[in-house]
Amino acid sequence: MNTYQDYKDYGAKIMDVNAAIGLLSWDQETYMPDGSSDLRSRQIATLSGILHQMLTSADYHQLLLKLSDDDSLSSEQNRNVQLSVLDYNKKAKFSTEFVEEMSKSVSISFQAWQAAKSKNDFSLFEKPLEDLVKLKFKEADIKGYEGHIYNAFVDDYEPGMTVEILDKVFIPVKEKLGPLIERILTKACNLKNFKNHYDTSTQWDFTIELLKKLGYNFNIGRQDRSSHPFSISFGPEDARITTRIDEKDLTESIWSTIHECGHAFYEMGLKMENYGIPAGEACSLSIHESQSRLWENMVGRSKAFWEYMFPILKSYFPEQLFNVSLNDFYFESNKVEKGLIRTNADEITYHFHVLIRYEIEKALFNQDITVKDLPNTWNELYKKYLGIDVPNNKMGILQDVHWSHGSFGYFPTYSLGSFYAAQFFETAKTQIPNLENHIASGNFNLLLDWLRKNIHQYGRIYNSEELCKKVSGEGLNFNFFYNYIELKYKNLVKF
Amino acid sequence: MNTYQDYKDYGAKIMDVNAAIGLLSWDQETYMPDGSSDLRSRQIATLSGILHQMLTSADYHQLLLKLSDDDSLSSEQNRNVQLSVLDYNKKAKFSTEFVEEMSKSVSISFQAWQAAKSKNDFSLFEKPLEDLVKLKFKEADIKGYEGHIYNAFVDDYEPGMTVEILDKVFIPVKEKLGPLIERILTKACNLKNFKNHYDTSTQWDFTIELLKKLGYNFNIGRQDRSSHPFSISFGPEDARITTRIDEKDLTESIWSTIHECGHAFYEMGLKMENYGIPAGEACSLSIHESQSRLWENMVGRSKAFWEYMFPILKSYFPEQLFNVSLNDFYFESNKVEKGLIRTNADEITYHFHVLIRYEIEKALFNQDITVKDLPNTWNELYKKYLGIDVPNNKMGILQDVHWSHGSFGYFPTYSLGSFYAAQFFETAKTQIPNLENHIASGNFNLLLDWLRKNIHQYGRIYNSEELCKKVSGEGLNFNFFYNYIELKYKNLVKF
Repeated sequence: MNTYQDYKDYGAKIMDVNAAIGLLSWDQETYMPDGSSDLRSRQIATLSGILHQMLTSADYHQLLLKLSDDDSLSSEQNRNVQLSVLDYNKKAKFSTEFVEEMSKSVSISFQAWQAAKSKNDFSLFEKPLEDLVKLKFKEADIKGYEGHIYNAFVDDYEPGMTVEILDKVFIPVKEKLGPLIERILTKACNLKNFKNHYDTSTQWDFTIELLKKLGYNFNIGRQDRSSHPFSISFGPEDARITTRIDEKDLTESIWSTIHECGHAFYEMGLKMENYGIPAGEACSLSIHESQSRLWENMVGRSKAFWEYMFPILKSYFPEQLFNVSLNDFYFESNKVEKGLIRTNADEITYHFHVLIRYEIEKALFNQDITVKDLPNTWNELYKKYLGIDVPNNKMGILQDVHWSHGSFGYFPTYSLGSFYAAQFFETAKTQIPNLENHIASGNFNLLLDWLRKNIHQYGRIYNSEELCKKVSGEGLNFNFFYNYIELKYKNLVKF
Repeated sequence: MNTYQDYKDYGAKIMDVNAAIGLLSWDQETYMPDGSSDLRSRQIATLSGILHQMLTSADYHQLLLKLSDDDSLSSEQNRNVQLSVLDYNKKAKFSTEFVEEMSKSVSISFQAWQAAKSKNDFSLFEKPLEDLVKLKFKEADIKGYEGHIYNAFVDDYEPGMTVEILDKVFIPVKEKLGPLIERILTKACNLKNFKNHYDTSTQWDFTIELLKKLGYNFNIGRQDRSSHPFSISFGPEDARITTRIDEKDLTESIWSTIHECGHAFYEMGLKMENYGIPAGEACSLSIHESQSRLWENMVGRSKAFWEYMFPILKSYFPEQLFNVSLNDFYFESNKVEKGLIRTNADEITYHFHVLIRYEIEKALFNQDITVKDLPNTWNELYKKYLGIDVPNNKMGILQDVHWSHGSFGYFPTYSLGSFYAAQFFETAKTQIPNLENHIASGNFNLLLDWLRKNIHQYGRIYNSEELCKKVSGEGLNFNFFYNYIELKYKNLVKF
């Protein structure tokens, strides 16, 4: 391997293996028979080991060193190589054995979490999680870090992010969003409730029409059902999503479908010609989340959106929604409630759910608490920040899949993503005349094209903060989110 | 790598990669979006290259050489190593580049075949198939062979099989089955026909109940729909099947489901402890086919089977089958007809479909004909052997997927499998008292257990002929099939 083309070709093969692991995981969460878990775990572990060997091979390293010194590369080519060198340096610290051990530990934890959640029994998850946390400490040691040990993890999802920065991000969450919630709750006690029974296959059909209206390309994507909705991409030409349908709650499938669609839009907007190099990968998790949250919240929870979509929804559920007006539905979709479940949370209390997980993760890796303490700590923090009692672990500590995947440091990107989303959407509004009118008439292409042009196409060429500056003229600024949400609720509940 | 355990561990990793390729293919035929074909082709090619590198690595070779000289191995361990050495020697002749080139050529041909079939236009398939055939000539050269070039291909599916042996296998097909067909046709002209409309989702539900009754384990398997039914295994704990449903033809889904179930039974009957070594792999394609044909024909087209199953089927289609008796259905299920489509053929004319393909494949690689001649040759042979005119290429030369996969030398195993099936079933009848009564009362476990014990568990430890001798006391003997089929039709059409 000698040339930049060799580097691209090799990177594409790495992506191919990554895609195979992705498909093994997608299948595991959608169609795989229950009794195949052990077999699947070892298959994923083996492929992960092969991927790791490819990412850290001596030949590849030589090629990267050679290209690093190659003055003939364009600045974009140079940036790709630099990012690959950073990736290499990170990965090369780990042995293939460690990667396979981690993969197996994750599979065991994931299965244990599923059982624990379905049986509402944290003790089933405790030991596998303890083993996994031990491995995560080992991982941090091998990786090395400055400051808080948590920095070793968060950097994987959000390059350059640290506890020091994150702590500051969450200050206005506590100081500004907390009081805002109280003001809204006071005013919004008379929201209508339209709980009913919604046939799951009719809901499914609606989500498919919704995706088509949004512009999701079924020629290179598909939607399936899974217990935890997710999006996954095997390349820009195969970006899939899943949704979750609750026959008693119409909105769950709607929000999860729009959310995952936003993620898939990003993956579909990466350039196929960059398949295998950093320019063909998503910038960061926070930017990824900015895309899903922008579509879910700024678009999907807006009045304009439902002006267009509510008559369509009503045609699917004419009986159930007979007495429900657009305003009722819009109110209900934005009801602020101190609830138990993050994925069902409104746009404001959502960030306290994230904050709680962030504080727990920091405490766990700071060794202030142990895995055994997790349920109690969880329950205390839900009391402290949201004032509610957690009735059981299924609706508490066991609700999210992330820790069973070993994904510590992931949650904060959810809040960052929401804040970026508000900043991007505000910018889009200034650059796309009458954007809300277009949304109200079902024309989502202008927004999607704007996101493709300003965000998706760049992949990792810019980091989150650089991208944010390029798009909006300044780095992440919480005020965009605050102004957006305050104005929304001023109009909505007239406080 | 030094020990037999290392050999097993490495073999299991090879199987893991093989399983990933399998899942990429399964998804391609079931759920993959249409627009993802190119991406998927390259992903499968890359994984195939990695698999090839693992199968031919120097370290693995050293290990095999070392174990070949290890006197401390048991005879079964020794047999496994010997088979792996044979596999290694075969694979090592090919470069990774050649394997990837072949994989890509197959993907292109497969897509072209799909388009050609759906548009009934052979010309769309011609060029990709020509390229693929050129590669197959190259493959044969690299591999080396004795006698007919076709021996190089058939050996991949049926180790040790040659044109010289196959030509002899097809002599009684022509000499004994041909006249038998004429005798049956003369007598069977008054068979009832019950064509009607059969709701596809009701058919689907019936196939699921059918699978459960047969004993298919849904905890480690699943059924999906695909345009060409197939079975695929990712290990004994994940053996899946697909079926094809025609709303105008009730029997298509039934036969394809039972057929693929027979294949899956075999894969599920391999021992998990042998995952990754030859003892954990199917013996040969003919033995694999013997399992599917045994369940499809000896069980699924028997009177005993429908004594149990017909009332159940009738409960799914009470209106359509109101006037149909068990005897009518049994007759219809065994109607002998000189038809166009192999997969819909009865148990006797079936072998002429195979014979035709076998003769075409031999002629193509003997360079008596070229790819361009295929449709004409096909049509001439259907006239010659079955006396029928082929109305179009879709129902002729384009009907089967195999050649687009580069699978030349595969078809003859279908006939061999049927003949082995008759021999195995006859043996089972002598060893399981009242087997047909058990079948008639819906007890299929005795037969399945017998197959597990006598065939499935051995994997590749014995070759086809050795296994046949071990099971039935003699090598493949066409008389078993002939006696079975002659007796069946004597009873059925009283000739």
